[in-house]
Amino acid sequence: MEGTEQLTKRQMKALQTRENLLKAGRAVFLENGFQKATMTQINKMAHTGYGTAYVYFRNKDELFVELMETIMQKMYEVADLPFRPKTKEEAFSQIQKQTQLFLKAALEEKAIMQIVKEAIGASEIVSEKWNNIRTRFINGITTDIDFVQKTGLARPDLDASLIAKGWFYMNEQLMWDLVLEEVDGDFEKVAVNLVKLYTGGLYQ
Amino acid sequence: MEGTEQLTKRQMKALQTRENLLKAGRAVFLENGFQKATMTQINKMAHTGYGTAYVYFRNKDELFVELMETIMQKMYEVADLPFRPKTKEEAFSQIQKQTQLFLKAALEEKAIMQIVKEAIGASEIVSEKWNNIRTRFINGITTDIDFVQKTGLARPDLDASLIAKGWFYMNEQLMWDLVLEEVDGDFEKVAVNLVKLYTGGLYQ
Repeated sequence: MEGTEQLTKRQMKALQTRENLLKAGRAVFLENGFQKATMTQINKMAHTGYGTAYVYFRNKDELFVELMETIMQKMYEVADLPFRPKTKEEAFSQIQKQTQLFLKAALEEKAIMQIVKEAIGASEIVSEKWNNIRTRFINGITTDIDFVQKTGLARPDLDASLIAKGWFYMNEQLMWDLVLEEVDGDFEKVAVNLVKLYTGGLYQ
Repeated sequence: MEGTEQLTKRQMKALQTRENLLKAGRAVFLENGFQKATMTQINKMAHTGYGTAYVYFRNKDELFVELMETIMQKMYEVADLPFRPKTKEEAFSQIQKQTQLFLKAALEEKAIMQIVKEAIGASEIVSEKWNNIRTRFINGITTDIDFVQKTGLARPDLDASLIAKGWFYMNEQLMWDLVLEEVDGDFEKVAVNLVKLYTGGLYQ
């Protein structure tokens, strides 16, 4: 790798152990839920020495937060898609696509997302992480709304940041409903309805 | 009281004790938060005998759920206001009024609502209660949307129940943001923006 430092054998081994612990953590959380999982179980599952997990993660909360980054990756990619629509129709179809991908990505990770929901309620650290994730999404949406307000596609009298919050919260909670199976599992129907409400209200 | 049974002295005393315990509970929860509060503290604060609280409530979770009913009363009243608009303008102004009253009621109970938020994350019983509260609001909104869809004021191609969920979730989460002071405290600005988005999307 030109221009980057070569990792020593020891560093490579450390990275591998870290990966193993994360993989083991995922399995343990899936089996026991967040609150019942322990670092000891994760150590055992990863076949690392007693206490090794604590060399890499302060506690199970921090290990879980690392896992969340991986889980959210696909949803981040959706949020980061470029948004430069030239017409209302183009905007609607992009938003429709993004919303569907967002809900689909969550449902593809349904089992672990159920644990994420549990962990948000149970752990201060995880809840803070979720707030950061929210902020990332909301900032992205705010930028998108700013753009369509500037190009005159969207109503100028709305506060971009508040509308972004409202729109994200709608999606977030319906996502949890789908993940926890508290709403009919048809994510496309959910997306179509939310998008019609949102675009109908925001665009002029 | 004609037609109703007279309460015996003993029953009156029991009701009074229950009220005292609820009042004491409110004070203890406000001072210590949900997770640190104990039934012993509540007993002490209410000046009732050791263990009396357990005669009236199985645990602090159930006492708290009782408190929530009182706290939500004003918000319920807003949700239960009759909604029979004849024009779009009438609908908008009623929704605007309801949304403002909902957010205002939550902010008037800001301190205890912060504890409610904590308790929803910490207690299965409280979280279930909150889900019932949500359902109550969402059912009310669904009925309102059905009405304006039937009278032709609202778009017929939207699913009333999904739109009701989206709309409630937007309000709920912004309400928490206001209560937890994570958004600029101007609840009227929040209401105006959410209502514009919602009515613009739903009405035709």
